[in-house]
Amino acid sequence: MCGACVMEEVKASMLSRRSLFGLGAAVGAAGLLGMGARPAAAAAPAAEPVTVSTISDLTHELSSEFPTFPGEPGFAMERKFGLEKDGFNLFVLTIDEHTGTHMDAPLHFSADGLSVAEIPVEKLMAPLAVIDIREKASANPDAQVTPDDIKAWISANGELPAHCCVAMKSGWSQHVATPKFRNADEAKVMHFPGFHVEALTMLIEDSTAVGIGVDTLSLDFGASPDFIGHKTWLPSGRWGLECLAGLDALPAKGATIVVGAPKHRGGTGGPARVFALT
Amino acid sequence: MCGACVMEEVKASMLSRRSLFGLGAAVGAAGLLGMGARPAAAAAPAAEPVTVSTISDLTHELSSEFPTFPGEPGFAMERKFGLEKDGFNLFVLTIDEHTGTHMDAPLHFSADGLSVAEIPVEKLMAPLAVIDIREKASANPDAQVTPDDIKAWISANGELPAHCCVAMKSGWSQHVATPKFRNADEAKVMHFPGFHVEALTMLIEDSTAVGIGVDTLSLDFGASPDFIGHKTWLPSGRWGLECLAGLDALPAKGATIVVGAPKHRGGTGGPARVFALT
Repeated sequence: MCGACVMEEVKASMLSRRSLFGLGAAVGAAGLLGMGARPAAAAAPAAEPVTVSTISDLTHELSSEFPTFPGEPGFAMERKFGLEKDGFNLFVLTIDEHTGTHMDAPLHFSADGLSVAEIPVEKLMAPLAVIDIREKASANPDAQVTPDDIKAWISANGELPAHCCVAMKSGWSQHVATPKFRNADEAKVMHFPGFHVEALTMLIEDSTAVGIGVDTLSLDFGASPDFIGHKTWLPSGRWGLECLAGLDALPAKGATIVVGAPKHRGGTGGPARVFALT
Repeated sequence: MCGACVMEEVKASMLSRRSLFGLGAAVGAAGLLGMGARPAAAAAPAAEPVTVSTISDLTHELSSEFPTFPGEPGFAMERKFGLEKDGFNLFVLTIDEHTGTHMDAPLHFSADGLSVAEIPVEKLMAPLAVIDIREKASANPDAQVTPDDIKAWISANGELPAHCCVAMKSGWSQHVATPKFRNADEAKVMHFPGFHVEALTMLIEDSTAVGIGVDTLSLDFGASPDFIGHKTWLPSGRWGLECLAGLDALPAKGATIVVGAPKHRGGTGGPARVFALT
């Protein structure tokens, strides 16, 4: 199913989506500890002090060639001033919010979820749990992060840290400059890894995770017919990051993610500068 | 002098600017320890470990109403998909790179300086030295950070930290929603504080500062006829941040700035999400 077809499917599923949003609202209420409502900043628990000495970049360079979910360019820049003529250089950018290494804010898939500017700043720095599914993703591009993968991470590393970000390390970022990043088949259905909805439900119910991240084009796996992961996770008030770079070099546990999300009023997300501190 | 007039002045000063760029290139070579050339990342000294427990936002919310240097809106968003119709929300953004809380990359004022995507990631996290000129800025909107202000900071706080960011705290961010932020007079000359070129030369020569930040619309003070601060600082290979928020709450010393600069190929800067870790 191509990107456009997926969008048609989303439209067609309005009824089920609405009921999901009902669930989402309930989950959102239950999940306030995880994400926090707008005024919750003052009530947020103090973060654990963390000692860091290095910064690494989890952000791909953005250009008009950067692959996008729908397949059309999502970024353009036009020179407005040039050094020789004007004394300085300046471009005007045209950006589809969901292009490049970018944030999905709750508002992307909900009527009244937090915009990207409304996400409390304390939720933009989080302990990072990196779930490595490279082996199964290498064998099967439709691989997903499942509850068993989360359980295996916990067995090896202990409980998920409070207010963490859970990132999928599928190895897919190595394909970013090739057609394999979208990996569309003859029917234009894409094939890349993502989070299984059952893993997301588990995180919502059993953790205080504030966000998730993927090194692919979508929180859902590429062949998803219905964006069920987006529809479950984002309306719960949590954020997502797509097209992360640099996860391959990070340990399963111990890094801290800092999400330089854009802050435009009413935005549903946008290109973000994302760092890992270790 | 209005923004357009300043731009005319910049064009008219091409000859002097060129000689400044000559100086800038020399300073840039001398300043490699401060900013690093493109391949210098591997040679960068290890950062001092820092222990942090809180994150605060140094970023203003961006919208079409955000004040700009030239006075015209620098940001627009247009809905491309809507929840009711399409199942999700998404906007396309049009952004003048130098709008909102944003980064000036060396390329903004140099022919071959680092683009915003090329600034080494280690230079985007830095100890923050906050120079408080609120008292004199309150009395005189044309106030500038001078060498004496830097000397006074050093007298009170010790040497500037290695590879730091030096920020001007003028108190001007409180005016962001009012005409006083631009503070244009009848002749359209703006009046707000900035860095004096002699302070920037001092930082280039006597410190390893990697960047500077201001809580106003320009690194130069508003009434500057010639962008001399930009022309001195940026071609030296260092970065600048304009329209910072939240500096008023920060101590003179002890915070760490993390600059979520955009990473578009060949960019001269752009809206950045900027944090202070303490």
